[in-house]
Amino acid sequence: MMHLILADSELEIMPKIKNELLDSSLHHHLMKKMKIKDWRRRGRPDIAHFFLIVAMESILNKKNLLRVYIHTRNDEVIYIKPYMRIIKNYDRFKGLMKKLFEEGRVPKNNPLMIIKNENLFELLEKIDAKKILFTRKGRKISPCDLQAIYEKDVACIIGGFPSGYFITKGIEKKVDEIVSIYDEMLPAWTVAMEAIIAYEYKFCQKFL
Amino acid sequence: MMHLILADSELEIMPKIKNELLDSSLHHHLMKKMKIKDWRRRGRPDIAHFFLIVAMESILNKKNLLRVYIHTRNDEVIYIKPYMRIIKNYDRFKGLMKKLFEEGRVPKNNPLMIIKNENLFELLEKIDAKKILFTRKGRKISPCDLQAIYEKDVACIIGGFPSGYFITKGIEKKVDEIVSIYDEMLPAWTVAMEAIIAYEYKFCQKFL
Repeated sequence: MMHLILADSELEIMPKIKNELLDSSLHHHLMKKMKIKDWRRRGRPDIAHFFLIVAMESILNKKNLLRVYIHTRNDEVIYIKPYMRIIKNYDRFKGLMKKLFEEGRVPKNNPLMIIKNENLFELLEKIDAKKILFTRKGRKISPCDLQAIYEKDVACIIGGFPSGYFITKGIEKKVDEIVSIYDEMLPAWTVAMEAIIAYEYKFCQKFL
Repeated sequence: MMHLILADSELEIMPKIKNELLDSSLHHHLMKKMKIKDWRRRGRPDIAHFFLIVAMESILNKKNLLRVYIHTRNDEVIYIKPYMRIIKNYDRFKGLMKKLFEEGRVPKNNPLMIIKNENLFELLEKIDAKKILFTRKGRKISPCDLQAIYEKDVACIIGGFPSGYFITKGIEKKVDEIVSIYDEMLPAWTVAMEAIIAYEYKFCQKFL
């Protein structure tokens, strides 16, 4: 099984006002004006959306070999059922995420997503797998070389923020490998697609 | 060089009314009511958006080894500069596409996208590369096996519609191979990511 974690993702209800999901493409000036800490990187539900669209619609997930988690900057973890179909329309996706933050689960009966107060270390402890952190600060390898370090049970941790570094301190000590698959910062979904397909190539040739 | 073509994509200005980009998530009932032909599959700028987000932010494109084209149901072809950064916000992306349809190029000076009246065959004739059509009706192969049929210059053609089949008749006769990489219909961006990474694995190991 492959576990894919979007870590320290910039997904949250708007601080102070609390009436909608924070989205920098709409609230950029407001965040600046309100002097919200880290305002330059916060409010990026689009990153989580693209990440989910890539991961949940991958062949690996369709084969039921992928588990996807979204950890947020406020130490919540969103658990997603593998058969959930991600809403394509961005505004409706944001509406659903807002509801998830408010109600803890969506839909109410037989939820497809639930959210728990949990930090990244608590999540990682639950997952019995080799843990690989993706960051530019890691050991340089080619995406093709991911196969060499993958084990059958592997957890890949990818940053869910547009710039800067993980805000979870000490994450480096909780993983087995730290790798960089490109010289520059890559979007979370690009890293996700490389991570997923390396797993497909290593373990799923007979399934495909 | 890899060429990636989103073919017969459901991207168009709203028929008859002509005041905005057709989007089934907003105009579904209207399309049905107006008895617009093929209303069930039309108006999917989200597919083109996700496809571009995946393709243009791939490592292959960052290495300048990818060319991306969007062919529409109305026989237009959108040419995209490889260094264009796709707008992440969906509504703004739609605004840009509407402007492209109206003005033929965006931005006006040093355009990053231009649109031409051109059918799929005219586009394919311009591209000197092995042509591979992706469709469920093709020969079944594993995504890993794409490498075996790729040549250095290859053009991959992927459907840009949510259901049904290519509306360009006779496309099968204009390509060198017809393949199916999965038993069920896959979203265009999932096929794109498999196609792109197979090329990276075959030709770019030394670059990465």
